[in-house]
Amino acid sequence: MALVVQKFGGTSVADPDRIRAVADHVARTRRQGDDVVVVVSAMGKTTDELIRLAAEVSSSPAGREMDMLLTAGERISMALLCMALIDLEVPAVSFTGSQAGIVTDTTHGKAKILEVRAHRLTEALAAGNVVVVAGFQGVSTALDVTTLGRGGSDTTAVALAAALGADACEIYTDVTGVYTADPRVVPNARRLPLVSYEEMLDMAATGGKVLALRSVEFARNHSVAVHVRSSFTWEPGTWVREEDESMEAAIISGVTHDTAEAKVTITGVPDQVGIAARVFRALADEAVNVDMIVQNVSKSGITDISFTLPKDDLKKAGKVIETLIGDLGATGFDEDNGIARVSLIGAGMKTHPGVAATMFEVLAREGVNIEMISTSSIRISCVVRADHVERAVQALHDAFGLADGTLGMLA
Amino acid sequence: MALVVQKFGGTSVADPDRIRAVADHVARTRRQGDDVVVVVSAMGKTTDELIRLAAEVSSSPAGREMDMLLTAGERISMALLCMALIDLEVPAVSFTGSQAGIVTDTTHGKAKILEVRAHRLTEALAAGNVVVVAGFQGVSTALDVTTLGRGGSDTTAVALAAALGADACEIYTDVTGVYTADPRVVPNARRLPLVSYEEMLDMAATGGKVLALRSVEFARNHSVAVHVRSSFTWEPGTWVREEDESMEAAIISGVTHDTAEAKVTITGVPDQVGIAARVFRALADEAVNVDMIVQNVSKSGITDISFTLPKDDLKKAGKVIETLIGDLGATGFDEDNGIARVSLIGAGMKTHPGVAATMFEVLAREGVNIEMISTSSIRISCVVRADHVERAVQALHDAFGLADGTLGMLA
Repeated sequence: MALVVQKFGGTSVADPDRIRAVADHVARTRRQGDDVVVVVSAMGKTTDELIRLAAEVSSSPAGREMDMLLTAGERISMALLCMALIDLEVPAVSFTGSQAGIVTDTTHGKAKILEVRAHRLTEALAAGNVVVVAGFQGVSTALDVTTLGRGGSDTTAVALAAALGADACEIYTDVTGVYTADPRVVPNARRLPLVSYEEMLDMAATGGKVLALRSVEFARNHSVAVHVRSSFTWEPGTWVREEDESMEAAIISGVTHDTAEAKVTITGVPDQVGIAARVFRALADEAVNVDMIVQNVSKSGITDISFTLPKDDLKKAGKVIETLIGDLGATGFDEDNGIARVSLIGAGMKTHPGVAATMFEVLAREGVNIEMISTSSIRISCVVRADHVERAVQALHDAFGLADGTLGMLA
Repeated sequence: MALVVQKFGGTSVADPDRIRAVADHVARTRRQGDDVVVVVSAMGKTTDELIRLAAEVSSSPAGREMDMLLTAGERISMALLCMALIDLEVPAVSFTGSQAGIVTDTTHGKAKILEVRAHRLTEALAAGNVVVVAGFQGVSTALDVTTLGRGGSDTTAVALAAALGADACEIYTDVTGVYTADPRVVPNARRLPLVSYEEMLDMAATGGKVLALRSVEFARNHSVAVHVRSSFTWEPGTWVREEDESMEAAIISGVTHDTAEAKVTITGVPDQVGIAARVFRALADEAVNVDMIVQNVSKSGITDISFTLPKDDLKKAGKVIETLIGDLGATGFDEDNGIARVSLIGAGMKTHPGVAATMFEVLAREGVNIEMISTSSIRISCVVRADHVERAVQALHDAFGLADGTLGMLA
């Protein structure tokens, strides 16, 4: 008898029909003899609807109250799922984040989990129940209701799997797993049976939307085996776990892309010590998430600094830079909304030189200009024009043989 | 500086516009220097919508999960109200029933408040906040979320007023106070400036829908002065409090009516000791709320037993009686959905004989047949045909001079 955590996202519980389909699946798992802890998100568009209501009563809703508001969403979906399970004669009890012992810090809107005190859950499991827990939410050390931010329900699931010592953490979603590229862009993209935590982290960080970055970090840090799969087809999906021998054959696991970022370039900056520090400290103080940073080679003591950031942060960053320009002695700055990033991810890259060169050659052959480059041990990212990015993804996917069985060997 | 509890029902917070209007009023109260604790119901039709969802996933939703589901409603309205207050620069914090320390028994769906541990509220008030509390909900001694049943938010407000020693408990609703009769039936019905707890109890028990019975009982038991008033006109309404000299002038305070009950008659019952006990014990065991009971005078050792009950309980009661008929040696039973009750309420009735006689004369003059009668020290109720009840109410209202200034002196 195993203990399984099953997490269902908003599209998986979007309406009563979907909730009953999820209940059927959970009941099946339970009847096979496994203990089941279910983590649910809010139904479909509930969260968006609540955010819309908040905007109608306040120009800048208070964080504490926004968390109180949004946590109503999972409360509804988890209660409905329990009712559906009980209707199938499967005993089930729901727990809020607070009742489940998800203790967080006091940062409303994106709280961090500090501790999981899961004794109520273990008691309920021991009594023969399926346990249904509200994802995305917790209770702070100040006893206020908090939310975990984007992808928070995935993090709840992984944290519970770690705390309870679960045998697997199944993340059910509206796609059938992790692919070698976005199947909407690359029709012959292939589902990966296995990816390592490190690969998944780099995929999540570069536009692969299947799992949220924080949940993968949590899974890696606590060695939780995660199984990403579909709640529509129920077929086996992709396992995310420790790198092992079976993975070594693949040099490249996938091509990701991201069109949600913009680029800012500060021009004519004096090439002096401490300039970059001042720029990025000022941005960090305003909670702007800077991603790639490139400083060009200095010509006659003057340089340009470019960085990418989420488009949503562009306005905030613009204000920060504007006030800095004079102090820095820079000549000005440009904002560029027309960029995208294409990335190659693969654990085998570490031991196979030449991947970067091949990537640049493929892009050149396609006439795709590279504006910025950044690399890690298992990833190479290039910033290109947004309208070139799909062509770039397809070309790289073909060039590295990701569609067929060669599993990312250099083509 | 006073402490005021203000309760707003579903229609008062039905949409963002209404929530902002309520925030304006609360802010005004706060700026006059009073401390304010606000109790809110769920927005408009939210509860109905949640009940509909539950019916779509389960044929008989589990009580614990139904409470978890329904409590999402107040969570939404209270968070939105706090945001609106903060937008008006009035510091405000929301608390769930659990956070507010509303401790109940474990009866899901209609839990009873056992204790109020309001230390988080007093701390938040001391820190200068308006405190907004979710009505209708609490946490059980088993740490599960509970709801207080029909009229639960009124009970929450009164319980908090008692626990905090508030100077007043204002119940805002969609009517402007307590009337001498339902203004939809009696156009010249008059708003009462004051009613005693006892009168209000009898009004609530006989169809006056302004305040829920339980909240009035709680107010009486804890001597909480309640002010029923409109959140649409904001004008002063009706005070419900201890009987005093100023009330003594009125013999009759109001005429109420109720069309939500049905009548069951068990026919041909042997007139033996213990028969009634068996019938009503069996009904009580099935949680059927029996109201009026009449046993006719025995003719040749055979009698009929009639009782009224909520129409919603009729099906349940029918099943109970059906299984009893044989055991009792009765000949059968009838169900009657076509009845209504009309009641006269007045504290002065105790010291003025003849009120009942006048009531029966008025009904006779109107050609309204009386099917059942029950009385208490300050109330007389008659069961009549449902299609006669509005005529009966109007005639009684006229006959007892309730529309003019004579305040229920015998006309």
